[in-house]
Amino acid sequence: MAVYSETLELERTVEGDVVDITPRVADVVSRSGIKEGMVLVFVPGSTGALTTVEYEPGLVEEDIPRLLERVAPRNAGYGHERRWHDGNGHSHIRASLLGPDITVPVSDGRLVLGTWQQVVFLELDVKPRRRSLAVKVMGE
Amino acid sequence: MAVYSETLELERTVEGDVVDITPRVADVVSRSGIKEGMVLVFVPGSTGALTTVEYEPGLVEEDIPRLLERVAPRNAGYGHERRWHDGNGHSHIRASLLGPDITVPVSDGRLVLGTWQQVVFLELDVKPRRRSLAVKVMGE
Amino acid sequence: MAVYSETLELERTVEGDVVDITPRVADVVSRSGIKEGMVLVFVPGSTGALTTVEYEPGLVEEDIPRLLERVAPRNAGYGHERRWHDGNGHSHIRASLLGPDITVPVSDGRLVLGTWQQVVFLELDVKPRRRSLAVKVMGE
Repeated sequence: MAVYSETLELERTVEGDVVDITPRVADVVSRSGIKEGMVLVFVPGSTGALTTVEYEPGLVEEDIPRLLERVAPRNAGYGHERRWHDGNGHSHIRASLLGPDITVPVSDGRLVLGTWQQVVFLELDVKPRRRSLAVKVMGE
Repeated sequence: MAVYSETLELERTVEGDVVDITPRVADVVSRSGIKEGMVLVFVPGSTGALTTVEYEPGLVEEDIPRLLERVAPRNAGYGHERRWHDGNGHSHIRASLLGPDITVPVSDGRLVLGTWQQVVFLELDVKPRRRSLAVKVMGE
Repeated sequence: MAVYSETLELERTVEGDVVDITPRVADVVSRSGIKEGMVLVFVPGSTGALTTVEYEPGLVEEDIPRLLERVAPRNAGYGHERRWHDGNGHSHIRASLLGPDITVPVSDGRLVLGTWQQVVFLELDVKPRRRSLAVKVMGE
């Protein structure tokens, strides 16, 4: 049994970006040498999120943004905004709803995902960000 | 420390199904022989999700479907639908929001759950599906 | 590799409470002696949830409650309520949407979190509750 850690750097992300990190997470798992176990990916930060989606333009560019606007509209008026004036109240709320963590099984050294299922990072903040995602592989 | 893996097969699920998989996940944990640790359940696929709920008809048959319709209405018009015409844009969006993974603690060889809390698979796709959920138990 | 377990007791929580449990989870990790791995926190119960948020009053006291009311309004009329008359149909639905589990990476014996990111328990039930959260640290 072992734990293997890497940081996955995203040099520049802007609001609305849905970044397919599947190949990079798979590479971390490969470098770990772990064949059976799980990989945790985590966003250190309160305005980004992780989930899975079929990575195609209809969902990524249109449907996910519309979902986010439906559940936490940009202009709904946020207590966070009135106090801090950084324009990202909706970003925080969307991030808390979607969650900062995802755990994917590892079998035979590979991510256990559906054929049309990708692991994605969602940039929800209003200013360009540099993100360092924590990746932990555990298993044997 | 050990990792134990099984695949949990759901022979046929249709849209709206909320399947109580608690006994089957508990059986996997039992077969693993692991007494202290955690169990990860994961949906390989982008139109199903996992969460917990009190498994009673009011929530399962009425309230969860209404939640899903509220946050991602079937007829909201989806970019995914315009491109792929498979009628399941809402399924994808609901799945990304709820998430494909759940991790439950294991103590004394048993799932640590509330008395009225069940682990459920939600079938969100529009066509009947056969699902193979990945289950990974880790611990000692 | 080791597994370390504790129960985190919240003596009394009421609906709308967003409890910053970060210091207590960090203490559990510290007591575990585990330097590299992950920590799972889980709510045994179907009317509470876990996520992360920047713990400041605007988000905690105003924006999160408004999000919850938007996605699962208190007075939407719940099948759960018609059957059980305990007034907490919305509590269950909110809990299922947000999810009962969160997993945070552990590096150098510390939680890997953003500077303004806290781990929070959300009390969603309508009556005061005593909560026992399960905490599992795994790693080496």
